[in-house]
Order: sequence, then C-alpha cells, then structure tokens
Amino acid sequence: MKVILAYSGGLDTSASVIWLKRVKKFDQVVAVLVDVGQRDDFDALRERALMLGADDVVVVDQKSAMCEQGIAPMLKVGATYEGSYLLGTAIARPFIADAMVEAALETGAGAICHGATGKGNDYLRFEQRIKVLAPGIQIISPWREWACGDREQALALIADTGVSIPAKSFDYSIDANLWHTSYEGGSLEDLSQAPPPFFREEMHKEGVAEVQLVWEKGLPVALNGRDMPLAEMIPALNELLAPTAYGWLDLLETRTNGLKSRGIYHTPAGTLLYEARTALSQCWLAKPSLDFLEGMGQTYGKFLYEGIWQHPVQHAIEAATDALFAETQGTIDLVVKGAKAQVLARTANPNCFASELGGFGHMDSWNAAYSEALVFFQHLKYHSLPAGVGIREPDLAAI
Amino acid sequence: MKVILAYSGGLDTSASVIWLKRVKKFDQVVAVLVDVGQRDDFDALRERALMLGADDVVVVDQKSAMCEQGIAPMLKVGATYEGSYLLGTAIARPFIADAMVEAALETGAGAICHGATGKGNDYLRFEQRIKVLAPGIQIISPWREWACGDREQALALIADTGVSIPAKSFDYSIDANLWHTSYEGGSLEDLSQAPPPFFREEMHKEGVAEVQLVWEKGLPVALNGRDMPLAEMIPALNELLAPTAYGWLDLLETRTNGLKSRGIYHTPAGTLLYEARTALSQCWLAKPSLDFLEGMGQTYGKFLYEGIWQHPVQHAIEAATDALFAETQGTIDLVVKGAKAQVLARTANPNCFASELGGFGHMDSWNAAYSEALVFFQHLKYHSLPAGVGIREPDLAAI
Amino acid sequence: MKVILAYSGGLDTSASVIWLKRVKKFDQVVAVLVDVGQRDDFDALRERALMLGADDVVVVDQKSAMCEQGIAPMLKVGATYEGSYLLGTAIARPFIADAMVEAALETGAGAICHGATGKGNDYLRFEQRIKVLAPGIQIISPWREWACGDREQALALIADTGVSIPAKSFDYSIDANLWHTSYEGGSLEDLSQAPPPFFREEMHKEGVAEVQLVWEKGLPVALNGRDMPLAEMIPALNELLAPTAYGWLDLLETRTNGLKSRGIYHTPAGTLLYEARTALSQCWLAKPSLDFLEGMGQTYGKFLYEGIWQHPVQHAIEAATDALFAETQGTIDLVVKGAKAQVLARTANPNCFASELGGFGHMDSWNAAYSEALVFFQHLKYHSLPAGVGIREPDLAAI
Amino acid sequence: MKVILAYSGGLDTSASVIWLKRVKKFDQVVAVLVDVGQRDDFDALRERALMLGADDVVVVDQKSAMCEQGIAPMLKVGATYEGSYLLGTAIARPFIADAMVEAALETGAGAICHGATGKGNDYLRFEQRIKVLAPGIQIISPWREWACGDREQALALIADTGVSIPAKSFDYSIDANLWHTSYEGGSLEDLSQAPPPFFREEMHKEGVAEVQLVWEKGLPVALNGRDMPLAEMIPALNELLAPTAYGWLDLLETRTNGLKSRGIYHTPAGTLLYEARTALSQCWLAKPSLDFLEGMGQTYGKFLYEGIWQHPVQHAIEAATDALFAETQGTIDLVVKGAKAQVLARTANPNCFASELGGFGHMDSWNAAYSEALVFFQHLKYHSLPAGVGIREPDLAAI
Repeated sequence: MKVILAYSGGLDTSASVIWLKRVKKFDQVVAVLVDVGQRDDFDALRERALMLGADDVVVVDQKSAMCEQGIAPMLKVGATYEGSYLLGTAIARPFIADAMVEAALETGAGAICHGATGKGNDYLRFEQRIKVLAPGIQIISPWREWACGDREQALALIADTGVSIPAKSFDYSIDANLWHTSYEGGSLEDLSQAPPPFFREEMHKEGVAEVQLVWEKGLPVALNGRDMPLAEMIPALNELLAPTAYGWLDLLETRTNGLKSRGIYHTPAGTLLYEARTALSQCWLAKPSLDFLEGMGQTYGKFLYEGIWQHPVQHAIEAATDALFAETQGTIDLVVKGAKAQVLARTANPNCFASELGGFGHMDSWNAAYSEALVFFQHLKYHSLPAGVGIREPDLAAI
Repeated sequence: MKVILAYSGGLDTSASVIWLKRVKKFDQVVAVLVDVGQRDDFDALRERALMLGADDVVVVDQKSAMCEQGIAPMLKVGATYEGSYLLGTAIARPFIADAMVEAALETGAGAICHGATGKGNDYLRFEQRIKVLAPGIQIISPWREWACGDREQALALIADTGVSIPAKSFDYSIDANLWHTSYEGGSLEDLSQAPPPFFREEMHKEGVAEVQLVWEKGLPVALNGRDMPLAEMIPALNELLAPTAYGWLDLLETRTNGLKSRGIYHTPAGTLLYEARTALSQCWLAKPSLDFLEGMGQTYGKFLYEGIWQHPVQHAIEAATDALFAETQGTIDLVVKGAKAQVLARTANPNCFASELGGFGHMDSWNAAYSEALVFFQHLKYHSLPAGVGIREPDLAAI
Repeated sequence: MKVILAYSGGLDTSASVIWLKRVKKFDQVVAVLVDVGQRDDFDALRERALMLGADDVVVVDQKSAMCEQGIAPMLKVGATYEGSYLLGTAIARPFIADAMVEAALETGAGAICHGATGKGNDYLRFEQRIKVLAPGIQIISPWREWACGDREQALALIADTGVSIPAKSFDYSIDANLWHTSYEGGSLEDLSQAPPPFFREEMHKEGVAEVQLVWEKGLPVALNGRDMPLAEMIPALNELLAPTAYGWLDLLETRTNGLKSRGIYHTPAGTLLYEARTALSQCWLAKPSLDFLEGMGQTYGKFLYEGIWQHPVQHAIEAATDALFAETQGTIDLVVKGAKAQVLARTANPNCFASELGGFGHMDSWNAAYSEALVFFQHLKYHSLPAGVGIREPDLAAI
Repeated sequence: MKVILAYSGGLDTSASVIWLKRVKKFDQVVAVLVDVGQRDDFDALRERALMLGADDVVVVDQKSAMCEQGIAPMLKVGATYEGSYLLGTAIARPFIADAMVEAALETGAGAICHGATGKGNDYLRFEQRIKVLAPGIQIISPWREWACGDREQALALIADTGVSIPAKSFDYSIDANLWHTSYEGGSLEDLSQAPPPFFREEMHKEGVAEVQLVWEKGLPVALNGRDMPLAEMIPALNELLAPTAYGWLDLLETRTNGLKSRGIYHTPAGTLLYEARTALSQCWLAKPSLDFLEGMGQTYGKFLYEGIWQHPVQHAIEAATDALFAETQGTIDLVVKGAKAQVLARTANPNCFASELGGFGHMDSWNAAYSEALVFFQHLKYHSLPAGVGIREPDLAAI
C-alpha cells in the first residue's frame, strides 16, 4: 500500500520515511511538501526526501488558497481564540490536510501520515479534516506508535541514508507560515523562568514602519499605494514591520483537550491588519452591528482553533459577514514604532462617527429635555421603576 | 437655597460660581473639590473658588474609597468596555457624585450643579447616581441652560473677580485621576488628521521598567517587594512606567446615547495590572472559569460605563468573583520596554498549567486510544454523527 | 397640508379624523386601513371614515408582504423576545408603517398620524420606521398632545358626524392580526387579581387537532397534505386549532423604555410552527449549529421588538439562516389536545439523530477506551488537570 | 478486594452481583441502595440483594441532601439544559455518587461498580464525581466489559439464586426520582413512529389543580398555606398535579458525547416551580438582572448536565444568585388544567411592575419630549447617526 507523508524536512518526518517502510511495511511513501509560506528551500527538501527513500515527492503551493479561502474570511469577521490568538497555526492546517487528501486521491494512496503529536491541537486539525474529506483513508501518527521525538532513535533510522539534519540551537519548536511564526515547548514551558534572550531582544526592537491600507468590502486591497492580493500583501507587510517589535503575543491558551499550553506567536502583518480592521469597523458599523460581529468572530475562531473547517456554521458566518461589509470602503494610515501601532488617519464610508453631533449648535432637536430624558430612561432600563418610585435604593449611610 | 457645585478650577466651573448666584439666584454656593488622584493644587483651587464668591469650599479625598470599592472589584473581574477601555473616567464618577450628595446632605443644600455636557456619558453617571441616592435633590447642568463652553461669555462672568484662568495651549479636553488620563474633543475629533505631535511622542518613548507584583485573592498586594494598598500602588506604578510608552489606547467608542466618540486614554498602571491579572488568571483558572469570568467582566464594565453603580447585578458579580478568586495566590515579573510588557516569570497557586502533561512518558492512561477518541468525539460534537455516517460532507471537488 | 391617518375604526382614531382637521388644521385627512389579517370589515370601516370627514380612504393589503418578508425570516431563525414572546404585534408594525409612508408619498401628504401612546413600544416601531424611510415627514401622535383616551372628549368630537361606536364590553385593549391576538391594559394590569373569566375559559378548552406539516429550507410549505403559502397556512392552522387551548402566553415583559408590561398573547398557528421548527431543527442541526442559531434568534427578536427593521444585522442574520437551512427538508405530525402539542412523528433530511449509534454492537471503534477517554477529557476540560493531579478537590468531609 | 455496587434491583444490577464475584473475583460485594425519591420498596430490594449473594446492603437516604444542596440552587438560578430540560436525571447523579464514595470509604472498598452504559451521560456523571472525590478508587462498568443488556446472559447468571425479576411490559427504560421520571430508549428511538399510547393518554389528561406558593429569597417555602421543606413540597406538589397533563417534555437533546438522544421527561412539580419562579422573577428583577440571571442559569445547567458538580463556577453562580434574590419575597396562585398552568395572582416585593406608570396623568416628567427623545435615542443606538443624517437608509422603492 502507498502512504502519503506530510514531510517537513525535520528529523522526525525524515525518520518517518524510513519507519513507514521498514516498520509499517508500506510499499511506497509519497512525501508531500505543502507551501503555506514557510519560506523553506523546497528543492533541497525534495532532494532530502528522495535521499531518504521517498518514492515520490509532491510540492503543493497552498499560499493563495489559504489566503483567499482561509485568511480572508477569518480577517473579515475578526476571528480570534481566547480573545487574542490570531489562529496562525490553525488556519494553515486545513490547507495542508487538503493537499494531503488530494495527493492521496490522485496517487491512489490508502493512508496518510502526519507528524503531529497526540496531545496538541494539530493532530485534531489534520485528522478531523481528513476524516471529513476521505473517511476511508487510514491515518498514521508516528507519535502515537513510536516516540519519534527520541532523537537517538530517529538518528539511528536515518543513519545510513547519507542525510544529515543539523541539531537545533534551541530547545523549543517553531512553526512558520505566511501569517505567523509560533514558538512553543522546551524551555518556554517553564513559566517561572524568563524566555530565552531572543524573545526579549525581538520585543525590544525600536524600528519604525509607515503603512497605508485601502479596504473594500471588509478586506484590504492595497498597501502603500499598490493594489495587491492578500498572498502578496501579507509578506510585504511582514517585511515592512521587520525592524519593529510589533505583533508578538505570549499566550497561555487552553487546547481542545483541556491542557493549558504556552505559545509565543509572532504575527506582524496579521496583527496590524486586525488592528486596522477594528479602527475602520468602528467607523463603518454602529455598536449593535459591532457586538453581533464580535460574537461571530469568537465562534468562527473557536471552530477554527478546534480544527473545524467548512462547517455549516462557518459558511453561515461568512454569509452574514459578507452582508455586513458589502458596502464598506476605507483608507487608514498607521505608524508602527517598537511594539506600538498608532492610527494616524482614517477615512471610512459609511462613517458612523460624526464629531459635529457631539458639539454645540447642531441639533435643535437635542435640547435639554432630551438629555434629561436619557437619564430617566437609563434609570428605568436598569431598575424598571423611575428614581424615587418604590425601589429600594442604596443606603445613604454606606456612601 | 444652597447649591453644591462640583468645582474643577477650570474656566467653565469658575464661571458657574457666578452664574449660579447671578442667573440661577442661589443664595449660597458650596464648591466641592473631589480628590480622585488628579494631582491638583487643592489649596490654590480652594482660594480661587472663594475669590469667585463661593460661600464655602469642601475638599473630599475619595482616592481610597475609589480604589478599594471601585477599582478593586473592577480589576478583579477584569471589567472593560468594548473590549479594551479600562473605564478610567467611568470609575471616578460615582465617587465624585457620592461626595457631592454627602456634601448636600451635610450642608442642607437642595441642588447639585455639575459641569458635564448633555451629550456625553459623564452627565449620565453623575445624574443617575444622584437620583438614586437623593431623588429629591434638584440637578443643575449649566451646559443644558447656558452654552458655558463659550469662552467669551465665561470670561465676562469672572471678569471682575480678580481670578485669571490661563488659556490652554491645546484644543482638546483632559480628564485625569489616579487610574488614567483621558484626552478627547477638539482636533482629536478629526479622524482624517493625525493627533497632535504630543501623542506620537508619548507613544514612541523607549524607556524600560521592571515590575514585580504579588497577588492575593485576585488583587495585587505588593509591588517590587513592598506591600501597599491600591491607592499607593497605582501612583507608584504609574511613576515607574513614566519613561515608557506603555498603556495608551486610542478608541472610537460608542457612548450610551449612541454617538461614536474618540478618546485617547493613558492608563499605564491599570493596563499593566490588567495584563498581569490575565497572565495569572490563565494559570489559576480552567477555561470554563475564564469564559464565565470574561462574560461577567463585560457585564460589569458595561454597567459601569453607563453610569450604573451598586446595582444588584454588580453586587452579584462581586460575590461571584470573590468566590472564584478566594484561594488564589501568585507572583509575576514583567519588563516593560516602550509600549510592550513582557511577562518574564510567574508562579501561581493553584496552577492549571502543567507542562509535563503535554510531554511524553507521563500518563500511561493517555495512550493512542485516547488521542483517537478525541478526534472521534470532536467530530461527533460538531456533526452529531461519526465521520462517514450519513452526513453530507464537503465536496471533494471543491478542495 | 395633507395628513395620513392610520385608521383602525375605533373611537380614538375616529375622533382623530375630526381632531386633525379642527385642532391641527390639516386641509385633508387620508385614512389608511392596513389589512394585516385582523379580519375587520374594511368596507364598513371605509364608510365610517368617510362619514367622519376623511377626504380619502386607502385600504392596503399587507398580509402577503408581512408573511413573506416578515414572518418567514422571523420563523426561520426562531426569533423571540425574552425567550417566549413570538413578536405578534412587533412584526406587523413595519408593514403598517410602510403602507402609511407609501400612501404619504403617493398622495403628497406631509404628515403621518398614528394612534399609539407614547409609553409603549408601538409608537417606537411606527416612528422609527417612518423616520428611516421618510425623515422629512412630520409625525403626529394625538396621545402626546391630547389625552385621546378620554372617552367623553372623543365622543364629543364625533357627536355630530352620525357615527356611533359601541362601547367595549371589557376594559382591556385588543390587537389582532394574522399571527396573533394580544390583550393588555385595564384589569389585566392588576397582577393581584385573576384575569377575566374569558381567559380561564380559553385556556381550559379541550378540543383536539391533528396537524401534518411539510418543511423545505427551514419553512413550512404544506399543511395536512396541501401546499400553501404562509399567508394561507397561518389562518388555516389557526382555524384547525380553534377548539383547543393551545398557543396562549401570559407574559410580564420589559418594554424598550424599561417599563414592565403585562401582555396575554394568543398565537396558535405561530406557536405550533415554532414548536414544529424546533423539533425538526434538533434533527437537522448539530448542537453547535443550534447554539449559533439560538443566539441569532434572540438578536433578531430583540431588534424586531424594539421596532428595528431591515437593519444590516437583520439582513446578515437572514443570510446566515438561509445558509444553515439551505438543504433541509422534513415532515412532522403533531396532535394538539387542550394546551399541549405532542409530536407524533417526524422525518428529517439531513438527520443527526441516529438511534443505533447509542445502542450496542454498532461501532467497534467505540470501545471501552473511548468511554474512559471521555471521562478523562471532560475532567481536563473543566479543571485543566487530570483527576488526582495537583488540583484542590472538594473536601470529602463535606459530602 | 471489596466492591461497592450501585444496586437498583433490576435485572442488570442483579446479575452484576454475581458477575462481580464470579468473573471479576471480588471478595465482597456491598450493594448500595440510594433513595433519591424513586419510591422503591427498599426492604424488598435489600432482601433481593442478599439473596443474590451481596455481602452487605446499605440504604442511603439522599432525598434531603439532593433537595437542599442540589435542587435548591438549580431552581433558584433557573438552570436548564438546551433551554427546556429541567435536569431531573442529572441532579440526582452526584448524590448517588457521593453515597457510593462514602460507602467505599466507610467499608474500605477499593472499587465502585455502576450500571450505566458508556454512551450516555450518566456514566460521565458517576465517574467524574467519583474521580474528583476519590481518584484512587477503581471504577467498574459492567456495560463496558460485558454486554449486560443481554437478557439471556443476565438471567443465566441469576438462575440458581432463587431471585426472579419479572420482564417489563414495555421496551423503553425508566428513571425516576423525587424531581422527575424520564423515559428513553426502545421504541421511543424511532422518531418516525408515535410513542406508545401511554404517553398520549398522559398528555391528554384533563384534571385540575389549584396551587398557592409562598417564596422567600428565591425559593418556595410554603404550599397551599403550609410551610414545608423542598423534600416534602415536591412530592406533595407532584401528587396535586397527578390528575393533570402538566409537566411533560419530549426532547431531542444532545449528549456530552455529541450523540442526539430522545428523552421524554415528566417533571410536574419541577415545571410548576420553574414557571412560578419566572412569573415572580419578572416582578422582582429588572431586565438587566433577568438577562444576567438567564446566562447564569444556562451555564449552571450545562455544567450539571455534563456531570460537573461543586465546580468553582457553580459556587460562584450560587453566590451571585444568593445576592440577587437576598431580599425577595412573593406569593403566587396558579390553576393547572390539563397541560396548562395559568397564573391567577401574584404579589411580589420588591415589584418592578407598576401599571400606573404606563397610564396617563402619572408623571409630569414623562411629557411628549421624553417620548420623542426615546425615538431619537433608539435610532442613534442602532445607527449611531440621527435619522436623516448621512446614513444609507433602505430604498423606498423596496417597500
């Protein structure tokens, strides 16, 4: 039988090429390299996979799909997990799974092997998506059968292939794509100790970046005067922000299995796009719309974090969000210095902010009686009785 | 009749002393100066009020009351408005209103005069609180009867008192207390233009501060090794953070009356205390508790923003929050550089984060079957049917 | 100037015809009779309006519009207010307002007069809708200028028109349309006394009705074997249910102005359609979808109750709901006896309910380990630590 | 080793006595009979357990504990699951688990055996509670090891004990306690067929009951003029309601494992207490308090349904609820006929309902300007701009 292997080029998935053949007795191993913007040298990785004995190597570029079908709706609705995580790992997983399933169907493979452990969320994201798309395909998880994290065992497996994989200079793991880079595990799991100096240095950078974004229908369409699709804008924005300390998040989140997990996330372009979206949405939408949107963003984010994709609720939220933003347009200028983005200027259409309404001389209709009426109605709203009518009020002695 | 005037020392409330006597025909004006940490020279203000013709001046120190009864429960539950505003203006208002009502009751005054306009939230906060505590007292709002914002008219009123109030060098208004400083109005209301250079300079400061906080029962009790009450800790922390760009928020919020309003808020100590609280709460509490707490913080914050205080729901939330944090204890070290606070280290008791549970070798019980089971149950949860059983799944052709 | 009068035929709006001419000095009064299914004799009412001096009478049939554009989306999303009110009065108001505005635009009227008081929700619904559609039109509310509820004054006004309007035999007010009949005011406002015997008799009826409904895309399309539009199905269903005590609700709700209001609502067809919708939705949708739908139904209902119509959020919810139900189909049989509807049988496609999955022998995959795993993960979810690991558990002495 | 067996007297747990000794090789079996109000003949069951070979039989009366510690807080907060299930099975489980753990600790048993299957929620409720209270104790679930539902096997096991257990005359299972009776499984799982005639007969009963309840601090304290604790009131109320069709719920709920499950629940006293509580709470509390309470009731209910008990969040909700109801008092009269409870009269203190406020002549303060102001502010709230100012409104052509 043929097996699809999600190949990253690291020690674990390299050893898995051997293990799948030698231990699991697969006839053929097809290594799939999915490009989600992680800036790997795919030619070198292809070569390495072949040296390890892979029978075929497929490189799939999912950057545009991930941007157009994944990041776009997520950004439009403002999806987050636990209020701050911008879902950088979560959003890539369905597109990696899709590439693996497609490769399996095309090559006639009966199994898919992934390198995620069984205690995080990534294996849930891969496996749920695979089971939905191709319930008949067997899923192989080396971490569940074999402690592939054991460096000695893994090195032994690849010893006679001629492939050498240099040891990392740090003990945590890194996952990168177009949208973010995440850091977790190793010494980052000791909360009583400061993270390695790298993080403090990064968060202390003092560079400056000036950014202008034009938005249409809830999504950015131009950066600093140039129209571009998201798959181009995000890397360009990341580059602009490179001298700054912007876009870092250190989060103790709760995985789907209930375990707390510490992740440090670097999402410069993404964070700025979310911040710009918020600043413009506050112009475009009245508060009842913002509140409704907020709830949808949390729901969408939770589904995505848990590895759910293309669920009816997600489609419903996309339809609702498209409706809310259908007529919106805006431009925003920001300056980023160190870790701070300051909004310099914004224009929005429609625009709910009308400073003159708060000033004097404007509306004859808003006379003293209106101001008094609002006090009256606020009291009624919170107490259902007018002040002084039959309600027990706080004890004056207590003030 | 005697009237209580909330006196700030500025042009508007200075002119109001005259106006209350001359136009409103009050016999006596009692100027009340409420100290909520705004660092005014109260002796000079007392003198000024008397020069303007105030019959009496009362200075009330509400700093401790505001910290212990206001900021403490607000911080413990993590109250915010629209997800980010730390309620710096809102939290001071009930304590100012309380001081005015108490002065009215003590001096036998039949009216209270405040200087808030009729289009913001402050007048709602003052007037609702006054109506609850003393429904029979008359409320005087010069802004509703007299455009007291007219500088010429106001200057004319105080012309012959010998009091001179220097013109401001900026066109926006400032409100300061122990917890924050807010900036709004004037040129800040033109969203298409960058705020004055002052704000960019402040948000670009690069100083560093090192902070250690010890927490008990959900509240900070010691700063950098020294036990102190909140009323002492907040100013001390603000001073530590002065060289940094930390704690700025530029928000287009929605007032209770529905108007959008642009405020720039500087809450250095407050923002750091909220951030520390979040970092420790993620250790203390499992996600269902955090989710429940989050909802309560939003409710508490909305009530407070709207000027509701000591409402049954607020008391209920305080009781619930006390119960949740009753047994918690923790220490957290942070470094602030520029606009970024980095958590260096934290210890918490209890602590839901147990890094070893995510690792290998730990629990025999968490075998391969458990990992598989979670995939199975997640699919069931979102679809109510196991993968491959009777549910319409996404079209493979679409991937 | 010409004025549009929403004419109901009752004493108040009859007297208003005179009052608008005599007191308000309008040149012409156009009486608009809007048919929302209230089963009035519109020919007789037209005659009466002309006798009172109306210059023109327009009858507008809004039944189909109200069903297709109003009741359909409301039923599909399951909108309610305060968890139980099916919005029978609220849903008719926008369609009455639309008819009035349209009449004003067609006849060149500069004002619209409605008969709602200023302390309920109906005037909000009329006036908000009118202001949105035609902000320049003047709104006349006799109740705000003239205590038109004063029977003697009203009778005096119509005394010489030859119109006689018989006194009601009860002291509460009734509002009826295709969807419901509401009763409020008068003796119903004394909560310490039982409502008039009429209500007890109605709620004690013992008749039986058998109902079969076929649903497509979230809406009913056939009743007892016959395809029909909602505008036909609702009256037919109401007739079927007439011998029963089904569909009564006695609610102490909170109006938008904060006042509590007691309403007794009779919505037989509507209640049964909601109940059938719930029973089928539980088959069609997994719990995450139901939870999402539930939140949308509450939002949609609150907007509608407050008199908001065609708001961006309502359009967004309609788009989301259409997406969720796009592929659903079902049939349900119910028997109603007295006040109880019992679901006899239902078939649904898709159907999340699969009884065999709960039984034995089915899934080899759901072995003992899976059941154990779920206990393990539930504990992790609620405590973030496995049972017995480092968490303070309840004191055994306390059980 | 000694094992505790939760003994119900039915065929499965009877056979388990033998199975635990013969197959599982336990030295001693202690049968625990927990009285949660199910009206069994405990003397006969004790005798039966001993005949089957139980080494000891312990009867534990948990009725009062369940009422005071379980039903009381659940009723006070109005806990439900999926909006309608009154948690009758869920609330009994922690008290049964507590009795088993206590018996294990007292008798030195090292294992606890329960008769729940591994696909419902009851095993989760038992096992989570046992793991929290006594993580070291072994849990035995015959259904996971042995298909004890196989009637032939079970009969074979008890064949030579002299015990005979008559076959049921129906194919569904019944669980009863003080609060409710539930029916599920068997023919009830065929949604395309009407339930057995028993259910239609019950739901068509036409008897009448008159009920008066006095409430203090959010809980009922007297029934029809007689003070009594909940443990006495609930059975008394159930008896009063026996001639009626009141309190039936037919629900397709979603279990914690994601499976849909059809349950028919009969909770007459409980449903009436919830209904009375709602009718009084609408008098006691303003809408913001009711909304907050509603959210807490859903959270409390979800925790309880999932088998979580004495969780920090549950304690927090109890503290909040106690605070909300601390000062409430009321009396309510209801008549139940068939399936309908009608509220005849209620008095409440405090009482937010003040009918005179809605009438005329009351408040001078509520003049025409106030009514106009509310229209103005409602429009502002939903659109952030006054009507006619700069917002795109619906197309008139569309009405």
